[in-house]
Amino acid sequence: MNKCKTTSNDGKIKIAVHCSEGEKLIFAEKGGNLLDVLRDNKVYVESSCNGKGKCGKCKVKIISGLDKKTINNNEHLTESEIESGFRLSCETIVNGDLEIMIPEENGTMTVLTEGEKYDYELDGLVEKKHVALDKPSIEDQRDDYRRLSDGFGKKDLSIDFKNFPIMGETMRSEDFDVTGIFFKNRLLSLESGKSNIGTYGLAVDIGTTTVAIYLLDLENGKVLDVQSQVNRQRSYGADVISRINFTMENPRGLDILNRSIIEQINDIIGLLCQRNSIEKDNIYDTAIVGNTTMIHLLLKLTCKYMAMSPYIAMVTEGLEFKAREIGIDTGGMVSLIPGISSYVGSDITAGIMSSGLLKSERYSLLLDLGTNGEMALGNKNEIITCSTAAGPAFEGANIKCGMGGVIGAISKIDLSKNKIYETIGNAEPLGICGSGVMDMVAQLLSHGIVDETGKMLEKDEIEDEKYRDRIVREGKMLQFIVADNSRNQENIIFTQKDIREVQLAKAAVCAGMKILLKEKNIGFDEIEKVYIGGGFGNYMNIKSSVQIGMIPKELGGKIKSIGNCAGSGAKMYLLSKNVRDKTKSVVDKAVYIELSKRPDFQDYFVDAMMME
Amino acid sequence: MNKCKTTSNDGKIKIAVHCSEGEKLIFAEKGGNLLDVLRDNKVYVESSCNGKGKCGKCKVKIISGLDKKTINNNEHLTESEIESGFRLSCETIVNGDLEIMIPEENGTMTVLTEGEKYDYELDGLVEKKHVALDKPSIEDQRDDYRRLSDGFGKKDLSIDFKNFPIMGETMRSEDFDVTGIFFKNRLLSLESGKSNIGTYGLAVDIGTTTVAIYLLDLENGKVLDVQSQVNRQRSYGADVISRINFTMENPRGLDILNRSIIEQINDIIGLLCQRNSIEKDNIYDTAIVGNTTMIHLLLKLTCKYMAMSPYIAMVTEGLEFKAREIGIDTGGMVSLIPGISSYVGSDITAGIMSSGLLKSERYSLLLDLGTNGEMALGNKNEIITCSTAAGPAFEGANIKCGMGGVIGAISKIDLSKNKIYETIGNAEPLGICGSGVMDMVAQLLSHGIVDETGKMLEKDEIEDEKYRDRIVREGKMLQFIVADNSRNQENIIFTQKDIREVQLAKAAVCAGMKILLKEKNIGFDEIEKVYIGGGFGNYMNIKSSVQIGMIPKELGGKIKSIGNCAGSGAKMYLLSKNVRDKTKSVVDKAVYIELSKRPDFQDYFVDAMMME
Repeated sequence: MNKCKTTSNDGKIKIAVHCSEGEKLIFAEKGGNLLDVLRDNKVYVESSCNGKGKCGKCKVKIISGLDKKTINNNEHLTESEIESGFRLSCETIVNGDLEIMIPEENGTMTVLTEGEKYDYELDGLVEKKHVALDKPSIEDQRDDYRRLSDGFGKKDLSIDFKNFPIMGETMRSEDFDVTGIFFKNRLLSLESGKSNIGTYGLAVDIGTTTVAIYLLDLENGKVLDVQSQVNRQRSYGADVISRINFTMENPRGLDILNRSIIEQINDIIGLLCQRNSIEKDNIYDTAIVGNTTMIHLLLKLTCKYMAMSPYIAMVTEGLEFKAREIGIDTGGMVSLIPGISSYVGSDITAGIMSSGLLKSERYSLLLDLGTNGEMALGNKNEIITCSTAAGPAFEGANIKCGMGGVIGAISKIDLSKNKIYETIGNAEPLGICGSGVMDMVAQLLSHGIVDETGKMLEKDEIEDEKYRDRIVREGKMLQFIVADNSRNQENIIFTQKDIREVQLAKAAVCAGMKILLKEKNIGFDEIEKVYIGGGFGNYMNIKSSVQIGMIPKELGGKIKSIGNCAGSGAKMYLLSKNVRDKTKSVVDKAVYIELSKRPDFQDYFVDAMMME
Repeated sequence: MNKCKTTSNDGKIKIAVHCSEGEKLIFAEKGGNLLDVLRDNKVYVESSCNGKGKCGKCKVKIISGLDKKTINNNEHLTESEIESGFRLSCETIVNGDLEIMIPEENGTMTVLTEGEKYDYELDGLVEKKHVALDKPSIEDQRDDYRRLSDGFGKKDLSIDFKNFPIMGETMRSEDFDVTGIFFKNRLLSLESGKSNIGTYGLAVDIGTTTVAIYLLDLENGKVLDVQSQVNRQRSYGADVISRINFTMENPRGLDILNRSIIEQINDIIGLLCQRNSIEKDNIYDTAIVGNTTMIHLLLKLTCKYMAMSPYIAMVTEGLEFKAREIGIDTGGMVSLIPGISSYVGSDITAGIMSSGLLKSERYSLLLDLGTNGEMALGNKNEIITCSTAAGPAFEGANIKCGMGGVIGAISKIDLSKNKIYETIGNAEPLGICGSGVMDMVAQLLSHGIVDETGKMLEKDEIEDEKYRDRIVREGKMLQFIVADNSRNQENIIFTQKDIREVQLAKAAVCAGMKILLKEKNIGFDEIEKVYIGGGFGNYMNIKSSVQIGMIPKELGGKIKSIGNCAGSGAKMYLLSKNVRDKTKSVVDKAVYIELSKRPDFQDYFVDAMMME
């Protein structure tokens, strides 16, 4: 554990916000109006009456922390909405920590086509059909199975054995008037009469750090609820490599990590079902996205061949099977989103679909900066991908005082200011998160504290005297004092070794991009956009990323952060057969470049080690 | 229970013979030569050296009762054959009861095409493929799943989850040289290297009375072994109607009958595996045939809608699923042979395939005479079927002294002879089986003891005096003494009511045939052949069947008994995709005529009540 961390809080109220762009943590003073707080933090909520409680458009769902006293008799809320926690944000006073969800606007059956995403319509594989079957007679002797198959127009109808026995009763209980729920030609459920029971689906995003599950209404494509939690596997290693090692070093390791994620997913499903008063059996499809290691752990497949050359996965395909076959407790199917290789997983595929990569004739880049810097270069015709072992510096790991992007993390640094740092939530500083790390290196560089080789200068070599006091030597290593942590009397520092970690990471990312461009024989000036996925993209200081030479100057103005693109892609995959087909064809055509044995990658990498 | 039965035996040795035509029970004197005994009983065994032990062609498999002293060092027997119980019949002395199997001759990969059967070749759905997969490399990054799918040329390869985890190890243990065993595109098993393990299949014939399971080698189509047992469900009712009633009257009835058949099948599978030293997991397909009720009980589906108008089955389709899904303990699939309706089951479909019905432009009839007289009329272009409630008279049930066709049953009656009856195994008479019942009525009729309305005459009305003493009256009912049973001093009799039972049965069968011919607007003279399936056909006296008016005179010379045609059909279905496809298309086109509401059937039925 990082010894720089303490446990501290600053008395502000925390609000976890789930919106279509992903998750956001914002802070508010006690007693504030929720609509105002959201606006101040750039969370977009519609409000045509401007907060007067008249239009009903600013409704949000309060997932936890609901204050009973909040006004809830507004004509714009139905009883069932009130029951599920919906409130108008303009009438909600912030009195304690909250977790809220901003509902997506879905007026029509066409689920959005934001400019960036691959266009799609609501046409998921789950289908609910109400049919008055022909009644049997002496003249019409078809058996029940054939009657259903003919009535629903499903050739080769597939029925699970557990559903067979009650089928006959169901058909006859309302005189052969039935509702069937299907996944392709598979009858998942048969109900008598015209059924009012909803059909629900889940989009599951298994991140190495965070597990997020979205509950969707499959009939209108709306996101009903979302729940995210820290991936419990973190106790067994922060990144994929350490988890793979755990499965190889511990004879029960694979079993333990598999049970961890299965149980966590089931716990979240239980929570979502309870909160929304729905049955697990009415969840008919679950689209799952994750890097290839996360998917292997989910399926309890050995990861060891991914850990050794030539780095081969067991499965990256878009398989579909009964959820309970792998232990996920819903009545329906699981649809794995296909990935591209061992180190370019379905999270990247989902990013390709939910970014604008496929929309233009011109090439764009997609970067996902985690432990591995995974990236894709593509346009509407082709995709090439690679994965670089960037190391976890951009997640704040392997950095002396590094930490995740939570309250108290130094997220911005500007040495020209009086107070050189900002922390998340304006709390006491506890450590430095990824965006802070990147700023730090950029600032050290631009203020002459680090030279272009990445070497930190001795006190007397530094021109600007005001920074000299911040340089100290511990053992053989120079380090820079970012903040003194008054509480536990340990300073937050940034060391020579931390700089090297960042250099390795940024060099890997930069060299990866250059290889991709070289493959297509194009220059940076020909790139239309650079999409940055994941939480890091929201905080990253673009100027710093250019300054340290991670993002080439030519791309500086083209960067667009697309938030949780993996989760967005999973939702699209769940809701649309067309997206599913397109994803499969994209993955089939996608080219993966394994960098580890390419001499030109080594050359680029060494070149990119230098600072600007 | 029938009070005429006693427990008696006559000291002869019993030999149960399984051969391609079905099962046969024959009797021998102790000390006889097995080859001679078989020839005497018209069981065909090849022997080009005429019993001198030189050609090795008369080998049979001794399933039970093997005498260790039997010569077993003949050069014509391999060690594994000796181990599995094979002996030359010419060198085997009959010293005790035996159960033997006559192996089918399968010199080539083409499995016979006896004149009668629908032609087919060995091309079952189970496929064993040995492939040297491309080895993975930095340049070839396909995941294991894709590598298998490409290597085996199986698009949309389906793998069971339980097989996934060890797949990677298996592939790598002999450097990507693997053997896959498939059922269509489903990978059932993956072995490393070139596997020598055999692939086996089962043909299961679930009769209401008897369950027979054939073990086949899927690589050459040979029948390796067979085991038949009385269907344990008999304790819950002799015929399908009484078993359906049991499921409706007893809340656990369906469960009990389902467990009975599943356990019995598993027990027989266990026996076959042990006897032939094979693993259950190496049984990859199991083709199951049975009447629709037997199939419902197997799948634990309610039969109640088959018992009430309009008599609708839940499933008659040719479904395929994992054996263990329904509790059958093998590593592979189950393939249900499709049936046509509630009362024309897959046993009839199998009979259609294994008789000559589909071979000719001319129409032929197929009769299966059990509790229901099921029948089909067809040629190579079309099939129409019906089922008549014949009652169980031809199975010896509902007859005062009736019994099944086992030792001691009176199977032939000729009133012109001194000893008017013959029994199976020449044993003491215990009762009358189906063929005896039919003879009885024919003989009573031709000797003027019964008139053309089926009325038994009073003593003094009978012309031939020698029969008068056999007529007695018990209560109001006349009866005919067939034999005095000296042991328990009770006579074996045939009553007026028994005659009525036979009249009902034969009238139903005859009327059914007439309806089928009427539908196609053809006369009896246009019929090419009449195939009689089931054990009853082997014993039935054709002359008697014509005499009592069950089989119209015009058909008398066209009758051909085809033995256990259901079992034969199941074997064909197991071994040939072509048979499977053809069966499905036959079933799809087959027309079923429900007789219960047809006035013309009632007319024919009343007409046919009259004797000749």
